[in-house]
Amino acid sequence: MIRIGVLVSGSGSNLQSIMDACDRGDIDGEVAVVISNVAGAYALKRAENNSIPTKIFLHQEYPDRQSFDSRIAQTLEEYKVDLVALAGFMRVLTPEFLDRFPHRVINIHPALLPAFPGLGVRQKAIDHGVRFSGCTVHFVDSGVDTGPIIIQAVVPVYPDDTEEELKDRIIALEHQIYPRAIQLFAQGALEIAGRKVFVRNLVKDASLCLVNPPLDS
Amino acid sequence: MIRIGVLVSGSGSNLQSIMDACDRGDIDGEVAVVISNVAGAYALKRAENNSIPTKIFLHQEYPDRQSFDSRIAQTLEEYKVDLVALAGFMRVLTPEFLDRFPHRVINIHPALLPAFPGLGVRQKAIDHGVRFSGCTVHFVDSGVDTGPIIIQAVVPVYPDDTEEELKDRIIALEHQIYPRAIQLFAQGALEIAGRKVFVRNLVKDASLCLVNPPLDS
Repeated sequence: MIRIGVLVSGSGSNLQSIMDACDRGDIDGEVAVVISNVAGAYALKRAENNSIPTKIFLHQEYPDRQSFDSRIAQTLEEYKVDLVALAGFMRVLTPEFLDRFPHRVINIHPALLPAFPGLGVRQKAIDHGVRFSGCTVHFVDSGVDTGPIIIQAVVPVYPDDTEEELKDRIIALEHQIYPRAIQLFAQGALEIAGRKVFVRNLVKDASLCLVNPPLDS
Repeated sequence: MIRIGVLVSGSGSNLQSIMDACDRGDIDGEVAVVISNVAGAYALKRAENNSIPTKIFLHQEYPDRQSFDSRIAQTLEEYKVDLVALAGFMRVLTPEFLDRFPHRVINIHPALLPAFPGLGVRQKAIDHGVRFSGCTVHFVDSGVDTGPIIIQAVVPVYPDDTEEELKDRIIALEHQIYPRAIQLFAQGALEIAGRKVFVRNLVKDASLCLVNPPLDS
């Protein structure tokens, strides 16, 4: 059973999916602490509803990123977490923080990386006219959305999609792949080699293909 | 019935898929001429086998890109082509060429653009550790692999894939989506608006989703 620390800034729907998966037994672990850098984040309420300890550290109150990150790292160590999961956490972590949790910090991003890193990426995908986007769970490195990829999901994009429509489509998959990635970590099924993440017992399935617009429309 | 000019530099397997689709009636059109910038390209043999006129223009023999492109454009106009399809054509076309065939030049690229533009992209996708790649048919603009996207296909990528394995997986889809994109063009089903390509009568299908590694592996 792994202990998971979740960092949040907002509504925490991915936190909810992780807590639910732990409750269902789909993750061999539990959320040990939820840390927010925003005082009124709804994610805190979700954690309290699940009787999970919460901490609030306001980045504005720290003189620099190092001291802010250090305070978070200290708390995560106090709660003896095995894995740090970012769930809508809107701060970039320092290399010093990452060094304290080597290959143990993961994030979810609402695009098919390496396409569309950064912010506002659902609208960017629509505006670019892509036929597919998706979401990516990856280990965090010192870049922005650049770390080794654990799992990805693909969803279709349509030229007249609104950002809300595409967000709904992507988030439904986020709530499936983030718990799945955490369970693969909990099972020790992930092996990082450079940029690649090998998955134990992964069977190649060449039929995992999609076309948009479909071939027979 | 549209008349298609195909530009090639190599083996021409996409040319073959286009000729075959025309023969089957899956494309309302015919290949009117095949132009190569490489004298021994196997694509020329494929065209001859289908009794399609071929032309060879060696770019080395022209003083600049403009004169080379102008010679090709002149030939395409002589053959009264409605659409110019690049099929492994290894030269970047000048804006002057594209201006002579506005919104009538298309290309196929072996990656899920905007990820991995340029060359050597299958190995780049493997090295990056992505879970999905694919192929893209797009209108050509003056950038490299940047034009409005018509159709995309997704294929899985595995960490131990060889470039050949991934190439085989992608090319099987290329041979399906390139003829399909040409038929959408032939039917007048494509409408370009900025970067977006709208497809007539396209039905949104939110179930067009994939996850890799799969959720239940």
